[in-house]
Amino acid sequence: MTQNIYDDPSFFQAYGQLPRSIQGLDGAPEWPALRAMLPAIRDRNVLDLGCGYGWFCRWARENGAITVTGIDLSELMLARARAMTNDPAVDFRREDLETIGLDAQAYCLVYSSLTFHYLKHLEALFRQVHAALISGGSLVFSVEHPIFTAPLHPGWVEREPGRHSWPVEAYLSEGGRSTDWLVRGVIKQHRTIATYVDLLLRQGFRLARLLEWGPSAEQIAAQPALAIERERPAFLLIAAEK
Amino acid sequence: MTQNIYDDPSFFQAYGQLPRSIQGLDGAPEWPALRAMLPAIRDRNVLDLGCGYGWFCRWARENGAITVTGIDLSELMLARARAMTNDPAVDFRREDLETIGLDAQAYCLVYSSLTFHYLKHLEALFRQVHAALISGGSLVFSVEHPIFTAPLHPGWVEREPGRHSWPVEAYLSEGGRSTDWLVRGVIKQHRTIATYVDLLLRQGFRLARLLEWGPSAEQIAAQPALAIERERPAFLLIAAEK
Repeated sequence: MTQNIYDDPSFFQAYGQLPRSIQGLDGAPEWPALRAMLPAIRDRNVLDLGCGYGWFCRWARENGAITVTGIDLSELMLARARAMTNDPAVDFRREDLETIGLDAQAYCLVYSSLTFHYLKHLEALFRQVHAALISGGSLVFSVEHPIFTAPLHPGWVEREPGRHSWPVEAYLSEGGRSTDWLVRGVIKQHRTIATYVDLLLRQGFRLARLLEWGPSAEQIAAQPALAIERERPAFLLIAAEK
Repeated sequence: MTQNIYDDPSFFQAYGQLPRSIQGLDGAPEWPALRAMLPAIRDRNVLDLGCGYGWFCRWARENGAITVTGIDLSELMLARARAMTNDPAVDFRREDLETIGLDAQAYCLVYSSLTFHYLKHLEALFRQVHAALISGGSLVFSVEHPIFTAPLHPGWVEREPGRHSWPVEAYLSEGGRSTDWLVRGVIKQHRTIATYVDLLLRQGFRLARLLEWGPSAEQIAAQPALAIERERPAFLLIAAEK
């Protein structure tokens, strides 16, 4: 079973202070890029894997989805998600994505934001997702970029004043990485880009889009601290079609 | 026009000392992985972009291709290639890949090894290649991996004895990189993985395979110096289908 770090009270408390927790989708700098990869969802059913507070589920309803299902492992996240809506067409469920069973041909969009890099096993989930999509349906997801997750001891190095680099090591050694993010010992799974792509193609997906996210010039102008994020991509965004 | 570094006598002389120059395909550790991505070529026409000494062109003929065309910009490379075969079904031509025109529907395979990262402009070439392939045909190519090409000052850093990392910087800043490889001032073009994929999808290709090459356990056992190449991938290998 996946480490359920979001039910760690210290982690949950610290996570709640992040811009993306307070401002929702607009607090996530990669959201505009991810949104641009979404198919039309009006009058369709949508599934969100790792829904957290449910920001995307509510957004999907506001943008015309008939029903939205949000799955998460964290009781604390789901309690917060449920407290933020009384929309009967949004269903929040607690499930472990590594063992989940999904209804076949049920969704036009399966969405997942920054969740899959917590999962040890993705192949069975991708198989379920492929079966759960209608023909022409899309899986659109973000994960921490493999350049970001590769190092055993991640962090910026400033070799000259103002010149930052991100030392990559162990890129081809996939598996768990224990990092200190908000609390000590958060376990993430490092996979290469090739592995993400291969897992999708082997399930019969067609790769529709692959994006290595960095902030735009406008985002840097508004928030200069983001500039460093152009030295190495923080997020990998993928759209795949059935 | 692309920098024609292979016609620099010092570069050409030094390049000729590399294992891949002396031993041919078997001297290139990524060749077994690239070969595994090739379609059947028996009784088909094959095109090699950046053919160098022509090792792959000769291999393709030995493996049943009816005709093989090898393109290169370097007179010195082509002279060597021509000197190594008198097979009338292998045609070596000098052309600039940035402005080349190809016959439509002519090839089942367009192959390219470690060439595209020298080209400033790839979009027009990929359009030509797509048109030049028969339906179901493949473009299979290798380039230096974007993690490898990103740094402005590339090189290993040994932060602790025996622990090497590859500092990544400027990953999202695409464009020329001047590096000292065999001679000073070799110009390569850094592109992200996302850009390679996007260029292919926009021309109508379907992504069939993406591989981030590192040496296998067997290769490291035979050649222990290769072990460091698992810290970051040196090559990106892609197969795309029309």
